[in-house]
Amino acid sequence: MYLFSSLLKHFGMSIKFFRRNLNERPYLFIVGDVMEIKEIRIEELSTEKFIKEKTEEISSAVGDGVAINALSGGVDSSVVTMLGHKALGDGLKTYFIDNGLMRKDEPKKIVSLFKRLGVHVEIVDAKKQFFDALKGIKDPEEKREAVTQTFYKNVFGSLVKKSGAKYLLQGTILTDIDETVAGIKRQHNVFQQLGIDPEEAFGYKIIEPLVQLRKDSVRKVAEAIGLPSSLYKRIPFPGPALAARVIGEVTPGRIKTVREATAILESELASTNAFQYMAILHKDRVTGIRNGKREYGMQIEIRCWDSVDARTATPTRLNYDTLERLSKRTTTEVPGVVSVTYNVAPKPPSTMEAV
Amino acid sequence: MYLFSSLLKHFGMSIKFFRRNLNERPYLFIVGDVMEIKEIRIEELSTEKFIKEKTEEISSAVGDGVAINALSGGVDSSVVTMLGHKALGDGLKTYFIDNGLMRKDEPKKIVSLFKRLGVHVEIVDAKKQFFDALKGIKDPEEKREAVTQTFYKNVFGSLVKKSGAKYLLQGTILTDIDETVAGIKRQHNVFQQLGIDPEEAFGYKIIEPLVQLRKDSVRKVAEAIGLPSSLYKRIPFPGPALAARVIGEVTPGRIKTVREATAILESELASTNAFQYMAILHKDRVTGIRNGKREYGMQIEIRCWDSVDARTATPTRLNYDTLERLSKRTTTEVPGVVSVTYNVAPKPPSTMEAV
Repeated sequence: MYLFSSLLKHFGMSIKFFRRNLNERPYLFIVGDVMEIKEIRIEELSTEKFIKEKTEEISSAVGDGVAINALSGGVDSSVVTMLGHKALGDGLKTYFIDNGLMRKDEPKKIVSLFKRLGVHVEIVDAKKQFFDALKGIKDPEEKREAVTQTFYKNVFGSLVKKSGAKYLLQGTILTDIDETVAGIKRQHNVFQQLGIDPEEAFGYKIIEPLVQLRKDSVRKVAEAIGLPSSLYKRIPFPGPALAARVIGEVTPGRIKTVREATAILESELASTNAFQYMAILHKDRVTGIRNGKREYGMQIEIRCWDSVDARTATPTRLNYDTLERLSKRTTTEVPGVVSVTYNVAPKPPSTMEAV
Repeated sequence: MYLFSSLLKHFGMSIKFFRRNLNERPYLFIVGDVMEIKEIRIEELSTEKFIKEKTEEISSAVGDGVAINALSGGVDSSVVTMLGHKALGDGLKTYFIDNGLMRKDEPKKIVSLFKRLGVHVEIVDAKKQFFDALKGIKDPEEKREAVTQTFYKNVFGSLVKKSGAKYLLQGTILTDIDETVAGIKRQHNVFQQLGIDPEEAFGYKIIEPLVQLRKDSVRKVAEAIGLPSSLYKRIPFPGPALAARVIGEVTPGRIKTVREATAILESELASTNAFQYMAILHKDRVTGIRNGKREYGMQIEIRCWDSVDARTATPTRLNYDTLERLSKRTTTEVPGVVSVTYNVAPKPPSTMEAV
């Protein structure tokens, strides 16, 4: 194997193992054009230079063509939106896909924020498509896969066809690639790195201007490019959104439960300046008591992380007044929840997201 | 209904609703001989008087007959064992049923402790019977029911027949009855209070000397009757033992996992003087990362309670050094565990046990 590998290397090729989903056995791929990604560390990042270079790269790649991108409201896709509009102006069409899995009032909030920045964002209602695709799925990887496929093939695919765009701008960052290559999680946006050709698979080319950065650097660029601190200081939120915050099947009812819990959590923990915090709805039911009667109810797990770059993380030492207020509000305001726990395991061996 | 109820009361009868298990609709029963239980509050408890009275009651009820009891190692059954031996001497046979659901080294520890107190306890190996009965059962109430039925009908029933005993001494306390009547939990030892005749159902009579007491009072009696503080200060442990600490199916492997986690927890939290603490194995799996690879692993939930009498309880404000040490040891020493959470919801709306 070593000899074979060396031989390939001699011809500029390499061996990659990957899986389309994590239940499958790994495939062996021989890849001839793997892009070498050179990390830009935060201490060597000049935001001005970075913005200039990436704007030029996008301009020269797209030329007079049309590009589109999906804005989720997270810091990564927000920076990409700003870079794209800087580079292409009206040549970039930005869509906010409402997949029904977003946080409370998210579509409205994000669209009006970008309106103030002079960027027009169009909301696409795709709730039904996503919930249909997620029906009956319990496995975390199949869930991610269903969200990915619905996003690219059904929803975004048809937008691309309608718009005539051949380019998709996307906010993949370096940590996404690390975790996918390590087989920890199937991120939704690393086709190229895995050797899947997005042009063949989905009909368009993907441009990923943030792929050399980690989260801390992306935040620096966000500030430099004029995004408000409410956005670039925003905690990370995963691609499959609240679907990744529900253990077991994703239904409109379960999303509603975790959305309410998330709203409470975000209002209570905003002042902590933690790296990330989340509410997770468990599938396990636990015994509770309400009005003197047994209630076999739901459990919400809270995670709040201290981290610099998401590669490692430790649970924030939240004070008990905060935890008790969170618990009280969650069990009082979210119907059916009788139990609240707080994660105390670091990453590793935990990961930041549970699903 | 009110008139009918008053009429019954006039004849010394009353109406009771109850369910054999919590999935059934409640039955309406008219009960003519409901035992009125008069609580003895801790401030009015004279332990000397209580021990004297209960010893006499047991003596006069059993007479020259043979009584048996099962010692679990909890404070309730330990006090009953001591009261019974005070009253009956060798007329009481005490068994320790090893149901395979006990804490680490529990049978050996308890038997040698009572040996030092002059009480002979016989260990009965019933592991196979209990695991067979629990196979495939996921519902908490069915689990309790399976443990109850195996305990009374199979294991204890045959011991009684062999011994010729007609009396069973049991450590039911007042909180058990409250919770069963409220429909919160089906306790394993409250047939009489539910109107089920244990003589008809199981072939023997149950004597419950602690039924007027709550936990704090039982501890006072334990001290007065000569039990060591390691025992009467012991945290409460439920009848179905570690089966009540596993969400979902109870198997030897899952019991082993929660037993290891419990041993770590008990060694780390012994010094807290909390009312109760427990490790719960979830059925939900969560994503973890070990040696750089994804591990779809298990989660242990820790609960630690401050309480006086178990009717209400609040999570102990454990310091984070303790929580982090617990988390570290649990994910390192217990194979397959990648996540540890700490319960932050009080009772109510939570209950102390999850299952």
